[in-house]
Amino acid sequence: MDDKIFGTNPVFEALNSGREIDKILILEGARHSRLAQIIALAKKRGIQYSTTNRKKLDELSENGNHQGVIAFAAAHEYSSVEDILKLAESRGEAPFVIIAEGLSDPHNLGSIIRTANASGAHGVIIPKNRSVGLTATVAKVSAGALEYTPVARVTNISSTIDDLKKQGVWVAGTALEGSVMHYDADLTGALAIVIGSEGAGLSRLVREKCDFLVRIPMLGQAESLNASVAAGVLMYEAVRQRSKTK
Amino acid sequence: MDDKIFGTNPVFEALNSGREIDKILILEGARHSRLAQIIALAKKRGIQYSTTNRKKLDELSENGNHQGVIAFAAAHEYSSVEDILKLAESRGEAPFVIIAEGLSDPHNLGSIIRTANASGAHGVIIPKNRSVGLTATVAKVSAGALEYTPVARVTNISSTIDDLKKQGVWVAGTALEGSVMHYDADLTGALAIVIGSEGAGLSRLVREKCDFLVRIPMLGQAESLNASVAAGVLMYEAVRQRSKTK
Repeated sequence: MDDKIFGTNPVFEALNSGREIDKILILEGARHSRLAQIIALAKKRGIQYSTTNRKKLDELSENGNHQGVIAFAAAHEYSSVEDILKLAESRGEAPFVIIAEGLSDPHNLGSIIRTANASGAHGVIIPKNRSVGLTATVAKVSAGALEYTPVARVTNISSTIDDLKKQGVWVAGTALEGSVMHYDADLTGALAIVIGSEGAGLSRLVREKCDFLVRIPMLGQAESLNASVAAGVLMYEAVRQRSKTK
Repeated sequence: MDDKIFGTNPVFEALNSGREIDKILILEGARHSRLAQIIALAKKRGIQYSTTNRKKLDELSENGNHQGVIAFAAAHEYSSVEDILKLAESRGEAPFVIIAEGLSDPHNLGSIIRTANASGAHGVIIPKNRSVGLTATVAKVSAGALEYTPVARVTNISSTIDDLKKQGVWVAGTALEGSVMHYDADLTGALAIVIGSEGAGLSRLVREKCDFLVRIPMLGQAESLNASVAAGVLMYEAVRQRSKTK
């Protein structure tokens, strides 16, 4: 599946039609009236855009007539946090949500969506900025799970955490300095598990917003687990605990 | 790190020196006395070889002077199953081993080695045939864990399982038709966890050799987890159970 749209008119139309766009790349220094409209529309819709050089645009479009702009369409529609909470409600279950703070590797996001689906989670929340979106690779790695498990994209993870807390959801962050082992924390009930980025883990702000921080024990020399493995370990510890309280 | 060796003399020398080689590609139809020696040495050392066309060899060697043969060196030395059991003994611990039956994706093997290290496992066992070996990508994805966690490569997984069983190791396979949930199985004590290939899961023969089969519950529409996530869920369930019996 090709998820690139290029050329001023096609990109403008895609934006204007409300189609889900992950990000837009614009030729640096370009001064074209249509590009100004594209930027205005992207701003209005809260879509990321950045500038790059002609070589990069030529490569990405395989030397197509990009006219200085390429948009990356999402491989799947985004849902909202409300959709995720409604899904939980419709199943008569307490919300069980995964928040991935800033993954850069589409394989990790795809694998997390797959595991979220398998573990009975109601959805995945990612930030609009500094995160891979729902690209074709994410869809492929999710092995079909993206068709069933809603993924919401929010402007501000930390205010989303505040909203979830107001609705009675407990928020568990994962951090090496977590005070409790993941299997000793209570992961039953309404729960959001927050996974940090591959390199830096959770940001300080998000870490401080969490109700509690759990630690996955590291018994060898490795300092951390792969992000999708860590997420899987936590989700299935929640599954285990939930199976015991039924 | 470049892990390809090409040209008849370099490949012959690498084989003759005992260097770890994952596999050898030979030009189909080639009739060169040095190639016959290479094949004889590969057979003697139990190293996989197969034939391919000139285009493939030209590509792999970046049009280098491959003389009809390319060897893929391992990015790290292999250990033996005995090394793994000795490591457990030296730590005064019951053996805890991961067997990956036939992974094709180096990201999965690298991630499993990383998680094996983090979960305190003593080593990883893979088959010589039909499995990715210790390539540069595996080393990279293991995030350094390959330096600490021994990986053994065996000719026959099912006879290795027999050997482990004779030494008192319990062998748990993972399969969708497993009769017990992974968290209800006893994963303490001397244990080998067997993970199947990405596509087909465990082979029938290996499945039948296992002492018991565990199932990771699938609560959504996804039919299975990514192999490295499934391995992580099982390894950390073993970690959890072990922490409770101390």
